[in-house]
Amino acid sequence: MAIPTSKRRNKSRPWSARFAEPVDALTQRFTSSLAFDRRLAQQDIAGSLAHARMLAACGVISARDGAAIERGLGKVRAEIASGKFDWSAGDEDVHSAIERRLTELVGEAGKRLHTARSRNDQVATDLRLWLRAEIDAIDGLLAALIAALAVQAARHAAVVMPGFTHLQVAQPVTFGHHLLAWAAMLERDRARLADCRRRVNVLPLGAAALAGTSFPIDRAAVARELGFEAIAENSLDAVSDRDFAIEFAACAALAMMHLSRFAEELILWSNPRFGFVTIPDRFCTGSSIMPQKKNPDVPELVRGKSARVFGHLAGLLALMKGQPLAYNKDNQEDKEPLFDTVDTVKGALEAFAALAAGLKPQPKAMRAAALEGHATATDLADYLVRKGVPFRDAHAAVARAVKAADAAGCDLAALPLNVLKRFSPKIGADARRVLTLEGSVASRAHAGGTAPAQVRAAAKKLLQRARR
Amino acid sequence: MAIPTSKRRNKSRPWSARFAEPVDALTQRFTSSLAFDRRLAQQDIAGSLAHARMLAACGVISARDGAAIERGLGKVRAEIASGKFDWSAGDEDVHSAIERRLTELVGEAGKRLHTARSRNDQVATDLRLWLRAEIDAIDGLLAALIAALAVQAARHAAVVMPGFTHLQVAQPVTFGHHLLAWAAMLERDRARLADCRRRVNVLPLGAAALAGTSFPIDRAAVARELGFEAIAENSLDAVSDRDFAIEFAACAALAMMHLSRFAEELILWSNPRFGFVTIPDRFCTGSSIMPQKKNPDVPELVRGKSARVFGHLAGLLALMKGQPLAYNKDNQEDKEPLFDTVDTVKGALEAFAALAAGLKPQPKAMRAAALEGHATATDLADYLVRKGVPFRDAHAAVARAVKAADAAGCDLAALPLNVLKRFSPKIGADARRVLTLEGSVASRAHAGGTAPAQVRAAAKKLLQRARR
Amino acid sequence: MAIPTSKRRNKSRPWSARFAEPVDALTQRFTSSLAFDRRLAQQDIAGSLAHARMLAACGVISARDGAAIERGLGKVRAEIASGKFDWSAGDEDVHSAIERRLTELVGEAGKRLHTARSRNDQVATDLRLWLRAEIDAIDGLLAALIAALAVQAARHAAVVMPGFTHLQVAQPVTFGHHLLAWAAMLERDRARLADCRRRVNVLPLGAAALAGTSFPIDRAAVARELGFEAIAENSLDAVSDRDFAIEFAACAALAMMHLSRFAEELILWSNPRFGFVTIPDRFCTGSSIMPQKKNPDVPELVRGKSARVFGHLAGLLALMKGQPLAYNKDNQEDKEPLFDTVDTVKGALEAFAALAAGLKPQPKAMRAAALEGHATATDLADYLVRKGVPFRDAHAAVARAVKAADAAGCDLAALPLNVLKRFSPKIGADARRVLTLEGSVASRAHAGGTAPAQVRAAAKKLLQRARR
Amino acid sequence: MAIPTSKRRNKSRPWSARFAEPVDALTQRFTSSLAFDRRLAQQDIAGSLAHARMLAACGVISARDGAAIERGLGKVRAEIASGKFDWSAGDEDVHSAIERRLTELVGEAGKRLHTARSRNDQVATDLRLWLRAEIDAIDGLLAALIAALAVQAARHAAVVMPGFTHLQVAQPVTFGHHLLAWAAMLERDRARLADCRRRVNVLPLGAAALAGTSFPIDRAAVARELGFEAIAENSLDAVSDRDFAIEFAACAALAMMHLSRFAEELILWSNPRFGFVTIPDRFCTGSSIMPQKKNPDVPELVRGKSARVFGHLAGLLALMKGQPLAYNKDNQEDKEPLFDTVDTVKGALEAFAALAAGLKPQPKAMRAAALEGHATATDLADYLVRKGVPFRDAHAAVARAVKAADAAGCDLAALPLNVLKRFSPKIGADARRVLTLEGSVASRAHAGGTAPAQVRAAAKKLLQRARR
Repeated sequence: MAIPTSKRRNKSRPWSARFAEPVDALTQRFTSSLAFDRRLAQQDIAGSLAHARMLAACGVISARDGAAIERGLGKVRAEIASGKFDWSAGDEDVHSAIERRLTELVGEAGKRLHTARSRNDQVATDLRLWLRAEIDAIDGLLAALIAALAVQAARHAAVVMPGFTHLQVAQPVTFGHHLLAWAAMLERDRARLADCRRRVNVLPLGAAALAGTSFPIDRAAVARELGFEAIAENSLDAVSDRDFAIEFAACAALAMMHLSRFAEELILWSNPRFGFVTIPDRFCTGSSIMPQKKNPDVPELVRGKSARVFGHLAGLLALMKGQPLAYNKDNQEDKEPLFDTVDTVKGALEAFAALAAGLKPQPKAMRAAALEGHATATDLADYLVRKGVPFRDAHAAVARAVKAADAAGCDLAALPLNVLKRFSPKIGADARRVLTLEGSVASRAHAGGTAPAQVRAAAKKLLQRARR
Repeated sequence: MAIPTSKRRNKSRPWSARFAEPVDALTQRFTSSLAFDRRLAQQDIAGSLAHARMLAACGVISARDGAAIERGLGKVRAEIASGKFDWSAGDEDVHSAIERRLTELVGEAGKRLHTARSRNDQVATDLRLWLRAEIDAIDGLLAALIAALAVQAARHAAVVMPGFTHLQVAQPVTFGHHLLAWAAMLERDRARLADCRRRVNVLPLGAAALAGTSFPIDRAAVARELGFEAIAENSLDAVSDRDFAIEFAACAALAMMHLSRFAEELILWSNPRFGFVTIPDRFCTGSSIMPQKKNPDVPELVRGKSARVFGHLAGLLALMKGQPLAYNKDNQEDKEPLFDTVDTVKGALEAFAALAAGLKPQPKAMRAAALEGHATATDLADYLVRKGVPFRDAHAAVARAVKAADAAGCDLAALPLNVLKRFSPKIGADARRVLTLEGSVASRAHAGGTAPAQVRAAAKKLLQRARR
Repeated sequence: MAIPTSKRRNKSRPWSARFAEPVDALTQRFTSSLAFDRRLAQQDIAGSLAHARMLAACGVISARDGAAIERGLGKVRAEIASGKFDWSAGDEDVHSAIERRLTELVGEAGKRLHTARSRNDQVATDLRLWLRAEIDAIDGLLAALIAALAVQAARHAAVVMPGFTHLQVAQPVTFGHHLLAWAAMLERDRARLADCRRRVNVLPLGAAALAGTSFPIDRAAVARELGFEAIAENSLDAVSDRDFAIEFAACAALAMMHLSRFAEELILWSNPRFGFVTIPDRFCTGSSIMPQKKNPDVPELVRGKSARVFGHLAGLLALMKGQPLAYNKDNQEDKEPLFDTVDTVKGALEAFAALAAGLKPQPKAMRAAALEGHATATDLADYLVRKGVPFRDAHAAVARAVKAADAAGCDLAALPLNVLKRFSPKIGADARRVLTLEGSVASRAHAGGTAPAQVRAAAKKLLQRARR
Repeated sequence: MAIPTSKRRNKSRPWSARFAEPVDALTQRFTSSLAFDRRLAQQDIAGSLAHARMLAACGVISARDGAAIERGLGKVRAEIASGKFDWSAGDEDVHSAIERRLTELVGEAGKRLHTARSRNDQVATDLRLWLRAEIDAIDGLLAALIAALAVQAARHAAVVMPGFTHLQVAQPVTFGHHLLAWAAMLERDRARLADCRRRVNVLPLGAAALAGTSFPIDRAAVARELGFEAIAENSLDAVSDRDFAIEFAACAALAMMHLSRFAEELILWSNPRFGFVTIPDRFCTGSSIMPQKKNPDVPELVRGKSARVFGHLAGLLALMKGQPLAYNKDNQEDKEPLFDTVDTVKGALEAFAALAAGLKPQPKAMRAAALEGHATATDLADYLVRKGVPFRDAHAAVARAVKAADAAGCDLAALPLNVLKRFSPKIGADARRVLTLEGSVASRAHAGGTAPAQVRAAAKKLLQRARR
């Protein structure tokens, strides 16, 4: 992280009048947050505008000063947007930089902006505004990925593949059903983020340094203008609370964990022994030494990036552990992990939405794999149950048949009827149907089951929710 | 963790018929979960009862078998409750143990119970039922602690103490206000747990091993009987999803983080240099070597225990990373951290509820500390603002006065008026009032501010919510 | 975690004389460590014996008292070993329990044992003694697992399998070479543990509570008797240092991470699409619903258990963060994660040593997989380099040949010579040899390479080091 | 993290010949590591130089090609050093960028450089070279900080302050002794890093992609030239091993944990209630709202930054969990956390070295605090032991005296002799001396104890080791 060398020292700090010596250059570099909190500049200006309007409305500053601040902040915003803002002036943080520039532009009115607030409540407000918007963006990306999965699922609702538990062949499932399992995880992520958003969307401003302010402020007006749903009810808590960042990081960690599982399967399925899906070349990279390689880099990176977000969550919790009230400088360390978490989640979701739409299932390879591993053994046991055999006995009978099939080097479904009958006299010719892959998947026709009709219905519902 | 030595080998396993050799003794010990999943016995029985009733209602088993199962499970439940159940029979897990005993008690009907389900959906159901109840218990403990804090806050709403930022004296606050900051954190914990509970309260049963079942089941009926709000919509996801455990662990980690901050301050305040509160002897312990010691063990342990819960959260996320669908044995590792998280949170909340009610503030020590550190400097700056000085200039003027007070070895509020005037001619005799501790706290009279009236109103609201 | 209900209250605590009220029952339960620190009983006695002998030798206690203590501790040791010790007497921790019993047995001499020490230095000593022995045990288990791998590697040094990068076929390797990769990881674990052991093996005793003691003690004598290599050089540090536990947890986390990778591959290879190895039935378990299942539970659990140890490490670091000197009660939370880490690592290593010895490679399946994925493409590029083509151009030429093979639906090695020549005129008949699996592995004949001779030599070296 | 927009697409990738479509722009951005691995450029060149020299020496490339490569790499190095290198050409990573530029500069010889190696062994080599140098730099910073502490400790070896356990007054210690406790922690960090360095300093080159190479290479020569102590013994392991990064991160986490404890105490001691040390203004910052504030930002930030490093460690472990051999793209995620860990540790150590040298103890405030809390109670108990009272009885007698002193509102040491005698008739006039702070610290005169002479001797030893 490059830390800008400041051009000036703390003579110009907004708090320097009581200090006997200027801040040490190393300390200045070490404590400055400008290199990363610049990212909050637009939110900082939006918050200041709302604050200034309220101060003017409440008579804490004059209407004229209010207008000057508004004009000045508009200019600062434009300077930042156009890249003309001077970030190298040695300011301590984004708040100081903007206030400094505002005062250069509008004079004394600029010095009145910080009335009735502190950087403690200001930065919490900025961060919440920023995170709220990012949550909305992530929600959109989640919806897009879910939609891509649902579209693919509907298309391939009847493609049969082996379902695994313990990575051993368990029962046949449909490819569509499997895709919707990933979508189901992502739907929970959306729900969690929506809950988190409500707790992010609370106004700290008005808490000032920690105790509130002696000016007659109108916090409700500021909340309304900035779109906050509620006002932080305790000023000491408001300036020191970083729950919203940690809760978001936990939501992000879960989402990345889901993507890591999705990724793991794409990687497995791309291996030639599986060959269940083809990832288009445009999402792969090669090797500098091995001419034949086509590597599933995108899912591998996403799997890897999940760990990074887990680390940020662990770090943020440790950061807040045991901090006495109210604000401590430790809290400055909340931003970089939060920013990186947002960037990582967004990047991974974007990459996977493109990938998901481009995935090409290979039904032949899937079918071949499903025909190996006695995938319909449970169906035969269920068949026996329907003939009156207690499940536990049916299970044992079929297990013995499986052992025989293994010894014969074939799949259970390939054993001749007369051999099967040896394991239970109740096995009739109609058992053949339940031993087929299609019979197996079609029979799981209840809500949540793998039957093609269920998958189509579920995909439709998901798509509607994703596009809402 | 003591692992019971099993008396028998896998001849009796519910799945052993296809195996060529018995399970190795070490493997059996290594893979058994009975030592810890016994804790789910009552939930396992409740789930089995609902499952059996549904099977009978749907005609999958006979009414007579249904009745036998119901009778048998009733007996098993009683045996477990009375401590007569034989846990040492070498069963693999709680599900197998109960099914084994049921079959001993009711014969063939017992072998029919496992129709249309798998341990994969069964354990997920058990765990969700268990966690739902524990969330309710934790919510009650949170409410009790909030209530204890609110009662104390109302009682001590006007006791003035120094508010700190960076552990430096910042501004005067009231002790009640500080207590309510902790309560505000805990209120968020309750809200988060309520959101989490909705995602816990979803029925996995019916997913069977991973693909659903070929029997005509009625999942809605099972959900109704067990009080689940929704049905897991994808069977592959249903058996492999542990989001609910991780989301809960994240909620628990945040709650413990809050308690760690609360604890940190109790420890600080118990130090003789602060002496802000007295922790009754009954919550303290002594030293084996130092005869004078009275140590705040309870808050220290709670602070320490927060780390343990952070660790469990980190572990659970890493556990699920990159797992292919559907169920893998790795998931068995979800239980011990989850159980320990619940126990730790409950223990800490119970301990703190008692402690919070017993805390005795020491207003004199608080006042002495608040009179040191120029706590009302901001009030003087605000005073100047009200006299027309831009805040930034007012800040600088007061900073210079503080420097002078430091040089004189006294607090800002103790500087004579004529000295103060040197830093701004606008300082008049009426400045004296804003420099008092009482004037300062009383002036922060908006929502969320530290003024005694605000604190009383906030405490009342909190108490109502806590007792709802 | 069952916390024993105590029979008595703190009237009997070794520190209760200054307390105005007895310890609250909940607090007593909450703060007691006896349920888990009992595990240190033998180490506690060993430490006390060495301490008492030194006190007597230095004249701090009389020879007679020393002898009484020695006799008494011998009895206590025997009572504990035989299960007759009364752990339910409500003692606070293992140290108090043993001192209490000692005093019951030998009277006044028992009350002299705690001269010149504190539980702070005592528990640190106990924990170090215990961990030192466990490190030695783990080292032995690591050596055994390495030996099992080396034996298998030597046996299967020439069995060819596909080596993967990005889980795509990369180049042929030998099974023996792959086994030795795991062994190489475990060798680093041994080296790390040996380094860690030196830092564990340092004596805290003599630090007393935190400042040292006013008695004329001989710390070197105690260190000698207990086999410590060094004496903690600063008493404040000695009682609050838990680096040794954290460093050990980091070593354990790395070892478990290695086993998780090993486990992942066993799981992959057990999948029927791979079928590279057979895990004997005795290490597998089945399914309660699917009669055909044989699941690789042991590697799955080991993979899962790695996460648990990662969690403990994260928790221990967070535990120590920001603790002021010297001992704080938080430190009591070091034991359970440390104990569980040791148990988990030992269990996983034992399980894997048995498994590793029982693994059966399936050379046919390995070979079939190696013949798919153009595994020898690099060999052809290297061939061209030897004919004078720059590597980068050789790489490109072979890549085009691979593309053609893909289009033709065959492996690169199966393309006829005349087709191969199209991509580079330098390809001659002798290229055929480098395209074979055997030619490829044999050619990597330098130190660390996959050639069978290299593997055999490496296995021999490893075996010697493991058996040293 | 700004991701450079590439100017060109994978037509120019070193592996693109077999791909049917160019890499998707988003994928290219998502998978590129150039934005951060540029940092390894000098190590990459050093490694390539050694590799090229060895290839020429072994006859794998011609002497002329070797010379051309050497010349070319020299130019590339200069371009990078002078900032003239074009990083925006859309290269995939630092290795490709440098090889591309080399080939532009020297033509065909450049295309021969990648003979007998892969980016897999190349990046591992680069990273190890880089980390080795950083470890040396960190070791130097640790030594400097230890030296600063030792100098201060020697200077203030006899300044008495209260030692705390449980943040309650425990026993008097000397300020020098306390400073040396921090130094003792940092000495362990140096020892750990030295051990870690040996495992970092192992050469992966020669492993090529994963299996070794078919060229007659001389790995020992490369190791010698690059200063590696050993050669990685297994090629599969060599390219996938990231233990060295994780072990380093664990060392760094421990070091940061130590600094967090150091920081915590500086923050506590800067609080006006303690006032034990003064942190010069130049290391502090102020408040935007509160004119009187002087905040200990540097220690607060260091305390916070420890959490960030803990998070990186947790992330790196999770990253490697369950990865099958050999190299996977996930590993690319090792760099950013490793780089940030190094930067964070170095920044914190630099900041603390300056701070430690500037700390000013306030003996008066320390003394006042030590006179409160019955700090010499243990000394009185020890006194009674010397008069023949068993320690446990002496402890109880003094505890009762403490209770009486509390009731009288004074410190134990202030109780008149006749009152003291009530608690034990053995207390004589000579007890007065052991109750003084000076008597107490002087009496702890053994190795590791707090007596001024011991502190001076320990400081001297530390200083010698730090300056070695």
